[in-house]
Amino acid sequence: MMRYLTLCSIEMAKNLVKEFLETLKDIEEVDLFNAVGRTLAEDIISNIDVPPYDRAKMDGYAVKAEDTYEAEEDNPVELKVIGSLKAGELKDLKINSGECVEIATGAVIPKGANAVVMVEYTEKKENGKVKIYRAVPPMENIQFAGSDIMAGELILRKNTPLTPRDIGVLSAIGRKKIKVYKKLKFGIISTGNELTSPEEKLDFGKIYDINSYTLASYIKELGYDFEFFGIAKDDKEDLKEKIKKALKCDIILLSGGTSAGVGDLTETEIKELGGEILVHGIKIKPGKPTIIGKIEEKLIVGLPGYPTSCLTIFDVLFGNEKNVIKARFPQRYISARGRTEYLPVILVKYKDGFSAYPITKGSGAITSLSEADGYIVIDENKEILEDEEVNVHVFGDVKIGLNIIGSHCIGVDIILKEGGLFAKTINVGSLGGLISIKRGEADIAGTHLLDEKTGTYNIPFLERYKVEDAVLVRGYIREQGFIFRKELGFKTIKDILENIYNLEFINRNRGSGTRILFDKFLKDYKLSPSKIKGYTIEAKTHSAVATAIVMKKADIGLGIKTVADQYGLGFIPLADEYYDFLIRKDRFNDEDVQTFIKTLKIVKLPFKKPKDCGEVIWEG
Amino acid sequence: MMRYLTLCSIEMAKNLVKEFLETLKDIEEVDLFNAVGRTLAEDIISNIDVPPYDRAKMDGYAVKAEDTYEAEEDNPVELKVIGSLKAGELKDLKINSGECVEIATGAVIPKGANAVVMVEYTEKKENGKVKIYRAVPPMENIQFAGSDIMAGELILRKNTPLTPRDIGVLSAIGRKKIKVYKKLKFGIISTGNELTSPEEKLDFGKIYDINSYTLASYIKELGYDFEFFGIAKDDKEDLKEKIKKALKCDIILLSGGTSAGVGDLTETEIKELGGEILVHGIKIKPGKPTIIGKIEEKLIVGLPGYPTSCLTIFDVLFGNEKNVIKARFPQRYISARGRTEYLPVILVKYKDGFSAYPITKGSGAITSLSEADGYIVIDENKEILEDEEVNVHVFGDVKIGLNIIGSHCIGVDIILKEGGLFAKTINVGSLGGLISIKRGEADIAGTHLLDEKTGTYNIPFLERYKVEDAVLVRGYIREQGFIFRKELGFKTIKDILENIYNLEFINRNRGSGTRILFDKFLKDYKLSPSKIKGYTIEAKTHSAVATAIVMKKADIGLGIKTVADQYGLGFIPLADEYYDFLIRKDRFNDEDVQTFIKTLKIVKLPFKKPKDCGEVIWEG
Repeated sequence: MMRYLTLCSIEMAKNLVKEFLETLKDIEEVDLFNAVGRTLAEDIISNIDVPPYDRAKMDGYAVKAEDTYEAEEDNPVELKVIGSLKAGELKDLKINSGECVEIATGAVIPKGANAVVMVEYTEKKENGKVKIYRAVPPMENIQFAGSDIMAGELILRKNTPLTPRDIGVLSAIGRKKIKVYKKLKFGIISTGNELTSPEEKLDFGKIYDINSYTLASYIKELGYDFEFFGIAKDDKEDLKEKIKKALKCDIILLSGGTSAGVGDLTETEIKELGGEILVHGIKIKPGKPTIIGKIEEKLIVGLPGYPTSCLTIFDVLFGNEKNVIKARFPQRYISARGRTEYLPVILVKYKDGFSAYPITKGSGAITSLSEADGYIVIDENKEILEDEEVNVHVFGDVKIGLNIIGSHCIGVDIILKEGGLFAKTINVGSLGGLISIKRGEADIAGTHLLDEKTGTYNIPFLERYKVEDAVLVRGYIREQGFIFRKELGFKTIKDILENIYNLEFINRNRGSGTRILFDKFLKDYKLSPSKIKGYTIEAKTHSAVATAIVMKKADIGLGIKTVADQYGLGFIPLADEYYDFLIRKDRFNDEDVQTFIKTLKIVKLPFKKPKDCGEVIWEG
Repeated sequence: MMRYLTLCSIEMAKNLVKEFLETLKDIEEVDLFNAVGRTLAEDIISNIDVPPYDRAKMDGYAVKAEDTYEAEEDNPVELKVIGSLKAGELKDLKINSGECVEIATGAVIPKGANAVVMVEYTEKKENGKVKIYRAVPPMENIQFAGSDIMAGELILRKNTPLTPRDIGVLSAIGRKKIKVYKKLKFGIISTGNELTSPEEKLDFGKIYDINSYTLASYIKELGYDFEFFGIAKDDKEDLKEKIKKALKCDIILLSGGTSAGVGDLTETEIKELGGEILVHGIKIKPGKPTIIGKIEEKLIVGLPGYPTSCLTIFDVLFGNEKNVIKARFPQRYISARGRTEYLPVILVKYKDGFSAYPITKGSGAITSLSEADGYIVIDENKEILEDEEVNVHVFGDVKIGLNIIGSHCIGVDIILKEGGLFAKTINVGSLGGLISIKRGEADIAGTHLLDEKTGTYNIPFLERYKVEDAVLVRGYIREQGFIFRKELGFKTIKDILENIYNLEFINRNRGSGTRILFDKFLKDYKLSPSKIKGYTIEAKTHSAVATAIVMKKADIGLGIKTVADQYGLGFIPLADEYYDFLIRKDRFNDEDVQTFIKTLKIVKLPFKKPKDCGEVIWEG
């Protein structure tokens, strides 16, 4: 059947994949030790009773209940002990009236006995007798054969994903081998002339292959198998050879290339190999370039090249649809009409649940991939998303810790490490952090914003930006200054000023406290930014500034002394600054946030700590 | 240090394990394809810029922005195309004013260019020129080197559990090998004379080993390794040999035996092998028999024998503490003071969250294990738990589908299969199901209760038991009757009545509809239950009755015709009965419940369907 479509709907593509997966129900037999997480391919009916015999539930004495009826705390009954039974022990014992058998938990109830008295209510005597201090009714403390599972009972249904507890039940009925569905196997091929394997040196104009590794890892996490067939250049024969090899898998994934030609090439090759194109382009954002074809009853799927789009489309087609959590979408977002949008989001803890914030920096950025916990689906007829509940399709196991968005400082890294905290840290500068706190994306934002007028840090900015529902916690004092290679031999600010227009600078990102400090410096000395070489080149962290200088990509930049020392670079101080922490009020009492503050107070840092370190110094 | 304690607190035992695990931070290097789910043992700092060069974000033309300033929709600018660049292509191109280069997404921006015009706003001409219909500012559609990740940035912190997206980021910066912590390896030894491996025939007095399989599967699910060293009999030398072999693992788990002697034997062996006992008994319920010792710097842990207790204590000591979900505990439960209790619970969907119901049938039952989604911790000072919010520690991935608790019918199995529904089915009989609906444990309960007085089914019982907030959905009509081996040659009820006191019966469980029918039969014919052989032997399902008859454990029993046919048994009808479904109102609109009802209506069943099948026939 030819189903060529210029732009098919996502539902159609999903159904196509689902239909295909239905045809792939190959079965294999596995040992119980390898069965967890697999999907059962048979109904499991027990052939045995569990327990298989009447057994003692407690340690004690197997008795005739009638013999104990007179027993009381202060008037025990004496019975003759005619033997003992441990679990697994077989003895042909039979008790008559007035007799009993010492019995261990799990042992076979001897003939003639119809109850067990717990050992706690007995007292063994020297003369082969035992005192019974409590009466027991018939059947007491006996687990009867088949009372748990009876032969003939349906225990587990076909298509059940097996948990460790299911495995335990299977062992209990003596099933060491079981039938499960074969694991789906994906063949992965990367495409694109610009791609290099991460084990190789990166030549100019190349980038490392990302999608093969993300996809392979996600496939593994989903419990499927994969095989990697390498990077195909944009070359007919190479691609054809790789597809041929990969046809031993159930599904072939092509991904990685962003080159315009790849899509067409994939289409040509599918046809040349005798296959058919089922879908070329899906009416969603992102994912338009998706291709689905079939060769020799194997599915071949061409995914978008950008990492987040690639993972998203893979998840839509092959992920676990039930991997969804509810979250609040607290912002206003405008989506394009006429195309279903799959919008990547970052999850933030919010009260007992989560908030989902859109990631808008574009799917081309690899940091979008690392920040995206999942995506939300915006219907093609929906234009505006605004402060509502959404379903977030998460990319597998999502570990949600603290979200620390703002200025970068190695002090934060030390606090997280010492406090044993899991956190997502996003370096967007002090001002970006302040805005993230306002929006609710961040739990904590490191900030060091100098107010030129008053010469004080942070608080004037919080007021200017009308920050509400947040507190400022005093952090520590950092020494900011110029960082440069020691061979330049600068001793004072004056030395730098004399050479300033000859030096290659590396600047910090707009909105960062360090950038504001540098701009103030230029203003104070009446220097022109446009004449500063490298003024437009922005690094996002102190370490990135230092690395650029070490690697001779720049001569000088602004940063903290601690980092200069770390990298063995020269340093001339410019200002002491307060590096404080802005924290959302609704997150302040969270366990992790409290651990963060406590650790801040006690941890040894390579910075000066003021007396009020860890105290709330402002509330908005 | 000798820390022998008669009964230590759970916190002490947990800390002991935690301290031990801290000492086990061996590191290994793994390939990126094998790194997902592993824990990072190094800080990852990027050595490269991402992207490593200024690259085009879009397909289009690389231009000097200044050349486009005049361009408008109806007044395009014409530029000379001096070449083209694909992604990964290296050409020494430089553009001057009036020139441009055709460029593909991901390609290197040529010298002289400072912006990219999207192909949508251009028109290629035959004469080697291109019309530009829109002005672009400098830097438009260019992703600058290092703008995503800059060399020197800390990308991932030590101790991060690696997600597929983290793996993608690692590949993006060219890290093919990374340092991770070695997987913890558990050695598993089963102990107990009564244990048989599930691949072997079960002799009388023996049971199958369960704990080794449950533990191994859970260990695997948690991402650790295991090795199984077999079943040790309650025999010193055997146990000692197995422990010696298992000392190559990090931690040795002993489990499985319920025999009284095992604990003492474990203690003796640990000492004989030169080890020390750190804990003997923990002050919790269950788990008192837990032993923790150390031999040659390896930890050795003796777990309780009952399956649910064994898994619970393992989870407390080695599980993921964050695997906790909040649930409502809607019942009243009384716990023993002075001992922390770990109470197994079953989870049921409730509104947007979950309810947790205690499993009280005892940890000796293997079905307790299969029903337990997790456990709650009741503090030693807390006596009464009543309608409050609790934290449920779940046993790994918990798949919560429908909870169908009540009478067993193969019709339910067919509906679930056809509807593609995941469900937990617990066979407790019609009356048990009715009570589970009242308590909120069940979403759906199959019921067929005959009211003797009125001769009608189900509704009189719902009123008698004051069922509220539930509806009864009409199911189907089952033919109930006597099931027996054909060789007995019975043709009519009269034949059975003539032989009734000579036959070995298998009865159904109290509270089941079939049991009520049988009791009514005995009453109608003035027969004495105490004279019926096997009257006290209870099977929980129709299939279990049929199996017992096929296996000659009984001659005759009551059940539905469908099952008699399935097993090739004789059948004499006694009554037509309505098998209906009681459904909680607050769950009625759940997607899975609706699928169940819809499937009930349309699926082909081996029963008669009345016209109102699938309709609500009663509301309470």
